[in-house]
Amino acid sequence: MANAPIRLGMVGGGGDAFIGGVHRIAARLDGHYTLVAGALSSTPERARASAEALGLARSYDDFAQMAEAEAARDDGIEAVAIVTPNHVHADAAIAFLERGIHVICDKPLTATMEDAARLAEAARHSDALFMLTHNYTGYPMIRQAREMIAAGDLGKLRLVNVEYVQDWMTGPAEGKQAEWRVDPARSGAGGSIGDIGTHAYNLACFVSGLTLDRLAADLDAFGAGRTLDDNAHVMLRWQGGAKGMLWCSQVAPGNENGLRLRVFGDAGGLEWSQEEPNTLWFTPFGEPKRLLTRNGAGATAGNTTASRIPGGHPEGYLEAFANLYTAAAQAIQARREGAPLPDDLLFPTIEDGLDGMRFIEACVRSSANDSSWVTP
Amino acid sequence: MANAPIRLGMVGGGGDAFIGGVHRIAARLDGHYTLVAGALSSTPERARASAEALGLARSYDDFAQMAEAEAARDDGIEAVAIVTPNHVHADAAIAFLERGIHVICDKPLTATMEDAARLAEAARHSDALFMLTHNYTGYPMIRQAREMIAAGDLGKLRLVNVEYVQDWMTGPAEGKQAEWRVDPARSGAGGSIGDIGTHAYNLACFVSGLTLDRLAADLDAFGAGRTLDDNAHVMLRWQGGAKGMLWCSQVAPGNENGLRLRVFGDAGGLEWSQEEPNTLWFTPFGEPKRLLTRNGAGATAGNTTASRIPGGHPEGYLEAFANLYTAAAQAIQARREGAPLPDDLLFPTIEDGLDGMRFIEACVRSSANDSSWVTP
Amino acid sequence: MANAPIRLGMVGGGGDAFIGGVHRIAARLDGHYTLVAGALSSTPERARASAEALGLARSYDDFAQMAEAEAARDDGIEAVAIVTPNHVHADAAIAFLERGIHVICDKPLTATMEDAARLAEAARHSDALFMLTHNYTGYPMIRQAREMIAAGDLGKLRLVNVEYVQDWMTGPAEGKQAEWRVDPARSGAGGSIGDIGTHAYNLACFVSGLTLDRLAADLDAFGAGRTLDDNAHVMLRWQGGAKGMLWCSQVAPGNENGLRLRVFGDAGGLEWSQEEPNTLWFTPFGEPKRLLTRNGAGATAGNTTASRIPGGHPEGYLEAFANLYTAAAQAIQARREGAPLPDDLLFPTIEDGLDGMRFIEACVRSSANDSSWVTP
Amino acid sequence: MANAPIRLGMVGGGGDAFIGGVHRIAARLDGHYTLVAGALSSTPERARASAEALGLARSYDDFAQMAEAEAARDDGIEAVAIVTPNHVHADAAIAFLERGIHVICDKPLTATMEDAARLAEAARHSDALFMLTHNYTGYPMIRQAREMIAAGDLGKLRLVNVEYVQDWMTGPAEGKQAEWRVDPARSGAGGSIGDIGTHAYNLACFVSGLTLDRLAADLDAFGAGRTLDDNAHVMLRWQGGAKGMLWCSQVAPGNENGLRLRVFGDAGGLEWSQEEPNTLWFTPFGEPKRLLTRNGAGATAGNTTASRIPGGHPEGYLEAFANLYTAAAQAIQARREGAPLPDDLLFPTIEDGLDGMRFIEACVRSSANDSSWVTP
Repeated sequence: MANAPIRLGMVGGGGDAFIGGVHRIAARLDGHYTLVAGALSSTPERARASAEALGLARSYDDFAQMAEAEAARDDGIEAVAIVTPNHVHADAAIAFLERGIHVICDKPLTATMEDAARLAEAARHSDALFMLTHNYTGYPMIRQAREMIAAGDLGKLRLVNVEYVQDWMTGPAEGKQAEWRVDPARSGAGGSIGDIGTHAYNLACFVSGLTLDRLAADLDAFGAGRTLDDNAHVMLRWQGGAKGMLWCSQVAPGNENGLRLRVFGDAGGLEWSQEEPNTLWFTPFGEPKRLLTRNGAGATAGNTTASRIPGGHPEGYLEAFANLYTAAAQAIQARREGAPLPDDLLFPTIEDGLDGMRFIEACVRSSANDSSWVTP
Repeated sequence: MANAPIRLGMVGGGGDAFIGGVHRIAARLDGHYTLVAGALSSTPERARASAEALGLARSYDDFAQMAEAEAARDDGIEAVAIVTPNHVHADAAIAFLERGIHVICDKPLTATMEDAARLAEAARHSDALFMLTHNYTGYPMIRQAREMIAAGDLGKLRLVNVEYVQDWMTGPAEGKQAEWRVDPARSGAGGSIGDIGTHAYNLACFVSGLTLDRLAADLDAFGAGRTLDDNAHVMLRWQGGAKGMLWCSQVAPGNENGLRLRVFGDAGGLEWSQEEPNTLWFTPFGEPKRLLTRNGAGATAGNTTASRIPGGHPEGYLEAFANLYTAAAQAIQARREGAPLPDDLLFPTIEDGLDGMRFIEACVRSSANDSSWVTP
Repeated sequence: MANAPIRLGMVGGGGDAFIGGVHRIAARLDGHYTLVAGALSSTPERARASAEALGLARSYDDFAQMAEAEAARDDGIEAVAIVTPNHVHADAAIAFLERGIHVICDKPLTATMEDAARLAEAARHSDALFMLTHNYTGYPMIRQAREMIAAGDLGKLRLVNVEYVQDWMTGPAEGKQAEWRVDPARSGAGGSIGDIGTHAYNLACFVSGLTLDRLAADLDAFGAGRTLDDNAHVMLRWQGGAKGMLWCSQVAPGNENGLRLRVFGDAGGLEWSQEEPNTLWFTPFGEPKRLLTRNGAGATAGNTTASRIPGGHPEGYLEAFANLYTAAAQAIQARREGAPLPDDLLFPTIEDGLDGMRFIEACVRSSANDSSWVTP
Repeated sequence: MANAPIRLGMVGGGGDAFIGGVHRIAARLDGHYTLVAGALSSTPERARASAEALGLARSYDDFAQMAEAEAARDDGIEAVAIVTPNHVHADAAIAFLERGIHVICDKPLTATMEDAARLAEAARHSDALFMLTHNYTGYPMIRQAREMIAAGDLGKLRLVNVEYVQDWMTGPAEGKQAEWRVDPARSGAGGSIGDIGTHAYNLACFVSGLTLDRLAADLDAFGAGRTLDDNAHVMLRWQGGAKGMLWCSQVAPGNENGLRLRVFGDAGGLEWSQEEPNTLWFTPFGEPKRLLTRNGAGATAGNTTASRIPGGHPEGYLEAFANLYTAAAQAIQARREGAPLPDDLLFPTIEDGLDGMRFIEACVRSSANDSSWVTP
């Protein structure tokens, strides 16, 4: 794709915000974007300083100003990355979507169901694209897992269990990364279930192809003075009869980013862990386990396509993230050319975002109702 | 312990029954027992043939005859191992306990709550000892985990998650090992939850020192025509505020005997897997993970005591099982001498067996009642 | 095998000697032996105390006395386990072999080549059996590896690399286990190369079926004041064109008993580690890696035969050791009956012992000669 | 570093050459370079097509033309990446160095010692920088390992063992990646020892801080009709008394890019594997093993500096490669400003390249001379 790089803006992500840097690297890695404008912080001085440090051509005090100004320029941004705390997502995304600027938005979709509905409405009425960065779907072995299940390699699915386990909130919630995550006004009704549980849920859906029927959840806030959950146990009933469990935690010492997925059917099983993302365990029932590798022997088309370098040379989190950005670039390029979107683009959409919001809401509702089974 | 070996009998375990052979090796491994009598099968011809193949001095057609005859001999058995299907446990154990013969019984305790109550009554009124072979408690690293938690190395416990995952019932239930396990008349009301879920539950209690307050369970029978569960998802609420999950399955391809325990407190975490039993992961919160080993650097007293050989030379399932037999031998030897039982003997008792039965019953009850929270 | 247990004696192994206890458990585990007599220590008081603690019927002050007395008894020992330091092996073994008593001897064969030749002469002229306990050959996955290679699953072999890495001599050599191992008079000319290098070499030969052509060695004694090697690097040239490396060390912190074997041919590769003995990695070239398991899917006959319990329930060092004792029992039983030895018995013989001694000698010779290539 | 991106050119790397793509991503990842010119192939049509596909501003038919033309432009390239087969490195690098253009060159340095000497001479006389992409030195855990050893955490070093094991040449050498590597005219005298053995050797030196004294090598060409080695076993003697082994292979089925380093001193040990690059095993002698992680608990300054994202989110090969490009950018920026180079820049230089060439030559020489000890 040797076309001119896509002009990208960013909302949030100033200073040393972890996720802003990730989005910038992901945009850069495959060479499809050039970052030219930003409203990098809700504090104007910090926004300006960050923009200067990054060498941005244009810095704005807030996203509204930025949307208006960029939409008015001939060389204005074509896409924007929104990497603020959750409660800002909806208004920011809507501002750009309404002006025909493509939106790449961090997850979860919004802080509230009302915001989610507003944003979905805007997305559906806009010609601009909306992509949600459920980045774990970008891993090559996850693509292979999805393809193998779709091809029937596991037979009829019976179990889809997933967990996302961290430990960084074991003690008091301190620092910029932690503070807004424990504040319902900025995070929404879900704590860990919104921050990482939605990732786990999205990944389970993406790989299995299943739709959740009901769930029963037990949420806890173990940290002193914390009101939002930092641990959630959830039982899952998938449509069609499969069952599952989801566990997310931010208070389990010894776990950095333990996102692990296990899927079992009547003909085989798959196991994957984000901390060793270049491998995938596959067991055809009754045969020895096989360790499939990224771009290695037995790789499916999706595995190979999502890979840049030979097997045994580890790719990681940033490459998976970049795979989403590249898919978005291909879609945006199609729009530039007035062409239909390629069939095989795999990036999470507004519908995935809504699904995630319903999942969070259902978990909170079930937990508040004595862990009864509820429909998302 | 150079005393005369304990004269042991066995009920069940004829032919190629897996668990009978395990008990015989466990009894032999440390040299404390000599197997002299048996009622090895409910089919007399098979019982006799098995006894002859094993070189037993005395073979009986049934346990009742055996209990009576052995109790009458000067050189009769001092202890009996009961390794039949679950529905025979109670009557057999009672027959020996009433005659003052120590009982070593496989788990779960019985097939029904009524049987469990009868057996408990008999055990409490007998001078003979009763040991239940929750054998996973015999692993050295499990002993270390228990000791570390008791010493406060994890701080206040927040999470105790455990799973026991197999795949051998993925297809139809065939063969001697499978058939009785899917028959409620012989297994009881629990399928996988009784066969392996109780092991997982017992291990979680043994290591954590916690008592279960309530549970919510979702049981499934995925195998065609199966009435008993072959998969169970259970949410746990421990007394004192800790939470947990228990998953057991016999239909998860790629899992042989995946018993895995994870415990997290506000100061640290532990992780252990039965398939790699000689190691234990320990993370003091905020420090690097440490890989503790059997009889290796940092071993606690219980780890060392339960070990026979240096670290790095793997011990396994049979040695852990033998640790229970050896503890029972030490208790029996104390009885021989009229001495009090040693303080530090660690073997599961009738109370553990009752606890396990209540756990099974509660899981079945909750699952039948839309996974509502129930008290065991 | 329900025949009367074989009457066994033991030379060495008193007090808390590690390897004596291992031999006793290995003899007991499958029920084929009963230990009745011993000359358990070169110190008579310790010998008597150890014998009493073990409940032995007969204790002797030295092996010569024991050989004579036991040979004269109708109920004398049929076999003897020799578990002394290396320099005693030859005289002790010869004393029993000359009297028709089967010998089970720890490795390496002897301390000197002269002793080895004398012992080999005695073994060849005796009707009694001689077994050397290269115990790692008893692991089920090692049996499978040997069978797969013999069946051509790896194609023509190109590389056989093996290592045995420990750390317990990193500091000064202290304690009973260490002291005689650093004393040439008791150990022989090899330090780590004799103690563990021979195990590695024997395992490589056993699995690959290859014969060593030449070697080039670089031996070091890193420990202060040590004269015998505690680390050895060896390059290997196998007959027929395959190459290899052998590394053994007792000064590599972080390694308990890291015996690891890797074999590669033009059609596939195998990798095995003693610290995770229940698995074996197999890669047919161009296909995904497969994790073969003990008694699991894809097990060969030798794997299954050497296993006692289902896959996923780990067996370990003691069971592998017991597999040698059981093979010896089957051979002894054949001798009792005047029958020919079963074809498929796999235990290391006097020829393996001689081969190991030539290996040690060649390593020492090459290292002393500027690591030149030498023929063992 | 928000300065204007460095204008970069590339020699080689057209079409689907693996390593060209790697360099381009590495240059892009942290945003310090912009690729503007190239002589991407020795076939002019392919060069032009590749340049167009990449959107390069300027394409040249050969490096000489490119060096001359770019040096003459005001907006000419400031640095060039050389990613051709080995035999082109010297002439190409010299052409740019002589014109004051910084050179980033793939390894090994050249195909012959004569070329290496010429190139070194040119580099020493040029004001331009020369960086060799021994990219594995860019991994954060490798930086930590180096720092820990320098800080004395392992005590006095005794053993430095390293291996780099692949399997892709197990069959015939086919395809563009393989063909030139088996051709002495393009690769030089070393096959696997030059292609991957130099990486292993460089890594061992970088981490240990040791200098090689002598080596003894045994090289083989197992592939049919192959003249260059595809497997090498090498014994190492480091200055100061430490020993080691190096094994590299391209014919070991089941290994993708198994670069593994193990270092042991009298106070501790370290183990690292490129296929799991985000962790590092550290054992202080006599204490439990610790699993150090990238940007995790216990990270050293070099680990943190070389990391972009939190621990548990895997970084990989491309990020490590980019760390070298970023160090080069910092050096080039210093040159732009006429400032001295920062003290803490870690990138391999011409001296490392010469050292690697001497290593290759010594291996070939030793192997040809019956594996005698030689001085590099």
